[in-house]
Amino acid sequence: MKILVINCGSSSLKYQLIDMNDESVLAKGLVERIGIEGSNLVHKPTGKEEYKEAKVMESHKDAIELVLAALVDKDHGVIASTDEIGAVGHRVLHAGTKYSDSIIVNDDVKKVVRECFDLGPLHNPANLIGIEACEAAMPGTAQVAVFDTAFGMAMPQKAYLYAIPYEYLDKYSLRRYGFHGTSHSFVSKETIKFANLDPEKCKVIVCHLGNGASISASIGGKCVDTSMGLTPLEGLIMGTRSGDIDPTVVQFIANKEGKSVDEVLNILNKKSGVLGISGVSSDFRDIDKACAEGNERAIAARDAFIYRVAKYIGAYTAAMNGVDAIAFTAGVGENNAEYRKLICEYLTFLGVEIDDEANSHRGERVLISTPNSKVKVVAIPTNEELSIARETLALVK
Amino acid sequence: MKILVINCGSSSLKYQLIDMNDESVLAKGLVERIGIEGSNLVHKPTGKEEYKEAKVMESHKDAIELVLAALVDKDHGVIASTDEIGAVGHRVLHAGTKYSDSIIVNDDVKKVVRECFDLGPLHNPANLIGIEACEAAMPGTAQVAVFDTAFGMAMPQKAYLYAIPYEYLDKYSLRRYGFHGTSHSFVSKETIKFANLDPEKCKVIVCHLGNGASISASIGGKCVDTSMGLTPLEGLIMGTRSGDIDPTVVQFIANKEGKSVDEVLNILNKKSGVLGISGVSSDFRDIDKACAEGNERAIAARDAFIYRVAKYIGAYTAAMNGVDAIAFTAGVGENNAEYRKLICEYLTFLGVEIDDEANSHRGERVLISTPNSKVKVVAIPTNEELSIARETLALVK
Repeated sequence: MKILVINCGSSSLKYQLIDMNDESVLAKGLVERIGIEGSNLVHKPTGKEEYKEAKVMESHKDAIELVLAALVDKDHGVIASTDEIGAVGHRVLHAGTKYSDSIIVNDDVKKVVRECFDLGPLHNPANLIGIEACEAAMPGTAQVAVFDTAFGMAMPQKAYLYAIPYEYLDKYSLRRYGFHGTSHSFVSKETIKFANLDPEKCKVIVCHLGNGASISASIGGKCVDTSMGLTPLEGLIMGTRSGDIDPTVVQFIANKEGKSVDEVLNILNKKSGVLGISGVSSDFRDIDKACAEGNERAIAARDAFIYRVAKYIGAYTAAMNGVDAIAFTAGVGENNAEYRKLICEYLTFLGVEIDDEANSHRGERVLISTPNSKVKVVAIPTNEELSIARETLALVK
Repeated sequence: MKILVINCGSSSLKYQLIDMNDESVLAKGLVERIGIEGSNLVHKPTGKEEYKEAKVMESHKDAIELVLAALVDKDHGVIASTDEIGAVGHRVLHAGTKYSDSIIVNDDVKKVVRECFDLGPLHNPANLIGIEACEAAMPGTAQVAVFDTAFGMAMPQKAYLYAIPYEYLDKYSLRRYGFHGTSHSFVSKETIKFANLDPEKCKVIVCHLGNGASISASIGGKCVDTSMGLTPLEGLIMGTRSGDIDPTVVQFIANKEGKSVDEVLNILNKKSGVLGISGVSSDFRDIDKACAEGNERAIAARDAFIYRVAKYIGAYTAAMNGVDAIAFTAGVGENNAEYRKLICEYLTFLGVEIDDEANSHRGERVLISTPNSKVKVVAIPTNEELSIARETLALVK
C-alpha cells in the first residue's frame, strides 16, 4: 500500500508518499506561504528532478490539490492515479487526554482535535484544516490521525502530574503530555531492534536533539517519562526555547519589563535557549562555529545544553532504576559526534564507554559504545514520516 | 564565645544563644506578631522553665530588646549581661551575586542586602530590620550576615544560567541561586565527617526534605548544583510549592482564570505542592495519614514527591559523574524512614542498599545503608542555627 503522510503548519504543508511494501519514499515535498503572497510548491520525486511551482494558494485545500496533481503528473509524478493512495496519515499535535493511540479520523476525532485548540493553539487548527482538505480532495480514502502526544500518554501519574491545584487538571486537562512522540516511539523501537534488547523489559532513553529537543524514558517501548510537558517549552535547552526555569522568571520579567505574560512566554519560546544565552544563533552549527572561535557565551550555551541533557539522562535512569540503551537522534543527535561524546563523559558512572571511531559517523544508524560498555549507546536517524506511515498502515490494512 | 543567632521574618524573630565552647544551646525562642496586635515572646532557657510574655511590640527593635531582657533576666535568663554576647549571626536570605561567603556587617553589606530586596522581597527587608535593630540594641557588638544563597554561589555557570536572553542576567542578576544554603553546607560537611569521606574529592547529595524542600550536589563540600533557583519555588515538589513546571502553566492559568501573573505565582507558592495535588494538607504527616486511609490523591502527591526526589538524585549523580554519599535531612528527611526507603528503591542501579533496621531510626544521625552499599546513605539532622553560629565565630574570633 502507498501512504501519503501530511504535516500541516499554519501556512505550510509537508508531505511524503511512501510505498509500504519496502518503506521507500516515492516523493516528498513542501508547500509554503499558503494563504500568503508568494505561495509555492517544492516537489521531490525520487529518482527524478525536483519540481517547483509558484501558484496562488488560498487555502490548504488548494495546496492539497496541487500536491495530488504533482504526484500524478506524467512528468514529475510518481503514481498514475490518486486511487493508488491507500490512506493518508496526518501528524496531529495534541489529543489532550482523549487518545493515546493513532486513530482513523471520523467526526468524533475531528471534534477532539478541535477541543484541543487551547492545548495546541499553533498546530491543532492547521492539523484539522489539513485533514478536512484531504477529506474533500480524496473522498473515501481513510484519513488517520497520528498524535504527537500519544507516546507520552503512557506516562504514569507520578510523571505527568504537576504539583498545582488539582482542579486545573480536572477543568483544563493541565498536565504533562510530552511531544516529539512519533520520533521517540520510532527511535525507541528501532533501538530495541538494532541493539538487540529485550523487547518487553528493556530500559531505553531517547535523546531527540535538534532545534527542538526532548528526551524520553521508556520500558519495553512504553513511555515512562518525557521532558516536554504541557507544551514543548519544558525540559531541555533548545534552539530558541528556555526549557526548565523557575516559574518566577515569568513574573520577574513581566514586572521588570512591563510585559504581559503572553509576551514573556513568547520570549521564552522564541528568543531563549542557546540563542538567548549565546546571542549568536539558534542553530547549533553556528554555536559550534562560535565556540571554535572562542566566543564565551556560545561556549556557555553549549555547556549548559549538554549539561542539561546529561542531567536528564541521570534523572531518567533513576526513574527506571537503570538503563540498557541510550539513543541519540534528530539533527544534533544524529550528526554531532562531539556533543554525544561530551554528554557521555558525564555518564561513565553508569559504565558508559564510547568508541571514538564508531562515534565519528554522522547521520547513520550506528552503535557508538564499546563492547565493554555497560549501556549500549546508539545513534539512530529519526523518521517521523515513516513512523506516521507505519501507524497509518497498521490501522487501515 | 557566646553567639546570638537571629532569623527575622516580616513579623517574627527566632533566636538561639549558643555557647561555642561546646556548641550547646543556652536558650532559644520566638517572637511573633511584631507590629500586629497580640505580639508575644516564647523564651526557652535550657534547663529552666519556658517563659512566655505578651507585650505590645511595634518593631523588631522592641522585639530584640525584649529578647535581650529575657536572656539576662535573673529568673529565666541564661547570661549575666549582654556583654557576654560575643557576636550576632543573622540569617539573611539573598546576597544576589555580591557575596558568596558570610561577612561582618558594615554599611556596604547593608547596602547589598537592600539592593537585593527585589530578589528576596519577603525576607531581605525583614533581615535588614533585624540587623539594624541589633546594631541599635547592642552597639559595638559584631553583626555577621550569613546568606542563604552563599552555598549555591559556588555553582558553575552551566548550572546557574537560565537559557533566557542574556541581558536579563546583566540587568537583573536573573539566574539560579539556590536556598537552604546553610543547611546544605552544614549537612554536607557533617556527612563528610560522619561517613568518613575524602574531604577534597567526595561527591555528596544532600536532600533537605521538609515543608520547603531542596537538594544539592557538592564535590569536596563545594556546591555544584542545587534545585532551588532564582527563588525557592523551583525544584522539588514541596508542601505548598509546585517546584518545576512548564513555564506555560503560568500563562495558561493566568489566561484561563483571568488572574494576574502575581496571583498565579502566589498560587504556585502557597496552594500547590502536595497540598495542591492531594487537597488534603501541606504537612507530610497529614499526607501520610491520608495515604494510610487509601486517599488516592494523597497517594498521588506522595508518589510524585518521592519520584521527583529520586529523579533529582539521578540528575545530580550525572552532574558529578558519580556519588559517594546521599544525606537526608530536615523534617521529612530526618524522620520519615518510609520516604527514605521509597526514594532509595529507585537507586539500586547505583548500588544503593538500605539497612531497614538502621533506617528505622528517627531524628538521629545514622548510617542507613548496608556495609555492602556502594553509596553511603545517611540521615543527618540539620542545624541551621549552629551553622550560622559557626560561620559567625569563624569571622569574629
